[in-house]
Amino acid sequence: MSQLEPEDPLRRFRDEFVLEGGGPIYLAGNSLGRLPRRAQALMVDVVERQWGERLVRGWGEGWLELSQRISAKIALLIGADADEVAVCDSTSVNLFKLAMAAVTAQAPRREILTDARNFPSDAYVLAGVGPLRVVDDPAREAGAGTALVSLTSTCFRTAENYPIGEMTEAVHAAGAWMLWDLSHSVGAMPIDMHASGAELAVGCTYKYCNGGPGAPAFLYVRRDLQERLRSPLQGWFGHASPFGFSPHYQPGAGVMRFLAGTPPVLSMACVEPGVDLLLEAGMARVREKSIRLGELLVAEADHQLAGFGVALASPKDAQLRGSHVALRHPEAWQLTQSLVADYAVIPDFRAPDLIRFGLAPLYNSFDDVRDAMARLRMVFESKSYERYSTQRSAVT
Amino acid sequence: MSQLEPEDPLRRFRDEFVLEGGGPIYLAGNSLGRLPRRAQALMVDVVERQWGERLVRGWGEGWLELSQRISAKIALLIGADADEVAVCDSTSVNLFKLAMAAVTAQAPRREILTDARNFPSDAYVLAGVGPLRVVDDPAREAGAGTALVSLTSTCFRTAENYPIGEMTEAVHAAGAWMLWDLSHSVGAMPIDMHASGAELAVGCTYKYCNGGPGAPAFLYVRRDLQERLRSPLQGWFGHASPFGFSPHYQPGAGVMRFLAGTPPVLSMACVEPGVDLLLEAGMARVREKSIRLGELLVAEADHQLAGFGVALASPKDAQLRGSHVALRHPEAWQLTQSLVADYAVIPDFRAPDLIRFGLAPLYNSFDDVRDAMARLRMVFESKSYERYSTQRSAVT
Repeated sequence: MSQLEPEDPLRRFRDEFVLEGGGPIYLAGNSLGRLPRRAQALMVDVVERQWGERLVRGWGEGWLELSQRISAKIALLIGADADEVAVCDSTSVNLFKLAMAAVTAQAPRREILTDARNFPSDAYVLAGVGPLRVVDDPAREAGAGTALVSLTSTCFRTAENYPIGEMTEAVHAAGAWMLWDLSHSVGAMPIDMHASGAELAVGCTYKYCNGGPGAPAFLYVRRDLQERLRSPLQGWFGHASPFGFSPHYQPGAGVMRFLAGTPPVLSMACVEPGVDLLLEAGMARVREKSIRLGELLVAEADHQLAGFGVALASPKDAQLRGSHVALRHPEAWQLTQSLVADYAVIPDFRAPDLIRFGLAPLYNSFDDVRDAMARLRMVFESKSYERYSTQRSAVT
Repeated sequence: MSQLEPEDPLRRFRDEFVLEGGGPIYLAGNSLGRLPRRAQALMVDVVERQWGERLVRGWGEGWLELSQRISAKIALLIGADADEVAVCDSTSVNLFKLAMAAVTAQAPRREILTDARNFPSDAYVLAGVGPLRVVDDPAREAGAGTALVSLTSTCFRTAENYPIGEMTEAVHAAGAWMLWDLSHSVGAMPIDMHASGAELAVGCTYKYCNGGPGAPAFLYVRRDLQERLRSPLQGWFGHASPFGFSPHYQPGAGVMRFLAGTPPVLSMACVEPGVDLLLEAGMARVREKSIRLGELLVAEADHQLAGFGVALASPKDAQLRGSHVALRHPEAWQLTQSLVADYAVIPDFRAPDLIRFGLAPLYNSFDDVRDAMARLRMVFESKSYERYSTQRSAVT
């Protein structure tokens, strides 16, 4: 630990994660969070005992309640009640279900609005649901024909935080509904769905929640709307009596009607340990450390990278920034390649010119940030990045 | 091994599964297949090395190709080409995507037909897609307004096999399309989608494919239709260039356009070992043993359970039967409870009066079947089942 290391009340959480000795500095938790030690132990139990020994009895011994139990915990992360959240499917499938339900409920309003800074796959899904218009300021441009506005609460490129309460209010003033994608915020900062007044939300669990690659996502439906809305995807786990084998579909009570098919138990079970760690740490403390990590990164970049043509692509004001910092440079792809291959730092790249450094307060230290910037300086000084010439896209 | 044990060319496969010593006789592989030893080892690698150490790099080191690689193997189980199958989502979500695509392509035809013997959750999904009619013989009743007929190829209650080629032909004669749910057949008998001529199919991987609880499902789209059909669920994994981050959705080539969101990697990876074992065994040998196990069960039930009021609910002709045998008894629920709790035999129950014995040729032995019937006889003789009085539904 550096002499300058500030006091870190979350330091003990670092030991809760698998951190191979001498491994890389991992600053891509905004793409895929690290493996919690408890998840490692849990998976042995889920595979060997629950599946291997208990077999089909597992459904009666916890698997059926998994989604609901984890949903109640995610609700605490996003300022919702336990019966307003359901963990299931992928973010895309959940976005589809909620957007379809919203557009159906809002008829004859049909139009959906988003902005160009939304994660592209959200726009793909929305365009499949109804006529989608991509505008600069959807909250202002919502009108009499607008059924739904859907935006991502923290921009995946710049980390800019949207004022979710204020924008939701503007959307409501136009009579439209609001659907927030919380994927780039959840687990990195407190979110208050109730205070926002928004009708709907979705989010993933594999970034700051550390749920594992492709871990099931979640959805939020404000309680007063639940009985009015129907999932277009009438799956048996959303049935009022899934194992009654009635020939007719009858939507279940509340938010659980938005479940669809049989959940992928191994992936689903793994969501819980990471969420538990966030709850133990407390989201206020997580946010506080996230801000300090971000401020340190910005200061170190200013100091160490002066003269190399690097610009801050994220908001300078920490309050307006989520939990990653994006640096802009024309050779961002090559710089990222060299950081990973030559200097054991893993950020991620976003075309055409961004290096994103994800700050996961549970396991990233202040030294991680300081060392990463020092190594990026070495990449510039040694010109090691010039070896990497082909620009390619990267996985989120 | 009993003296009467017939020669079993698949005997070595039993050792490929985790079979706890002295554990129960497991005859519910038609609900959830056993854990392959290779899956157990694989999960340690996926969790500890791939996620724990390789972290986000895992996407570039195999996770992105997982679905396609496993799809190619499942294609071999169902008589399809590799580029006609996609492993993704749940059976319900896949059924929704394909039924929506079919009904859209078949406009102005709108009606969907199924029969009352279909798995109830299939009817739930179909009823959410278009006007659904449940009729006795959908292949005959399909008419000028019928867009799609959807049926399950092996009845989940009785194990009756549908003549998929003949029924598909009748459906086509009416100008409708055919969608088969292969969940209760795949991995238990050879299926030939090409010979059937059917347009579409879906199926799960957690029964005879031993993919684990809630493992991702698959879908089949006949190659000549792929470029005509669009998934209603425009997810980024179905995009022509998922990581190009284009603002506009462009469906990917072929069947992969039916992928949706980020796949649950842990659950997805686990599908492969069980499918590999089936391919190594060969589906002709799997079916041959399945038939022999079924014939033995029927003979033993005849012999051992005479006088207890048990009736065979499955077809007597093994050729017409899938890989489970259903016995009918008014107290089937109580009998099942006693078999599980008192006699360490795990079949499963289907309301109101069926005990289903799933026969998984890779790991079930002839002794399993013989002993299970002997123990059921003991349940009757000891009247141990009378203790269990409340009838409840069960999980599939």
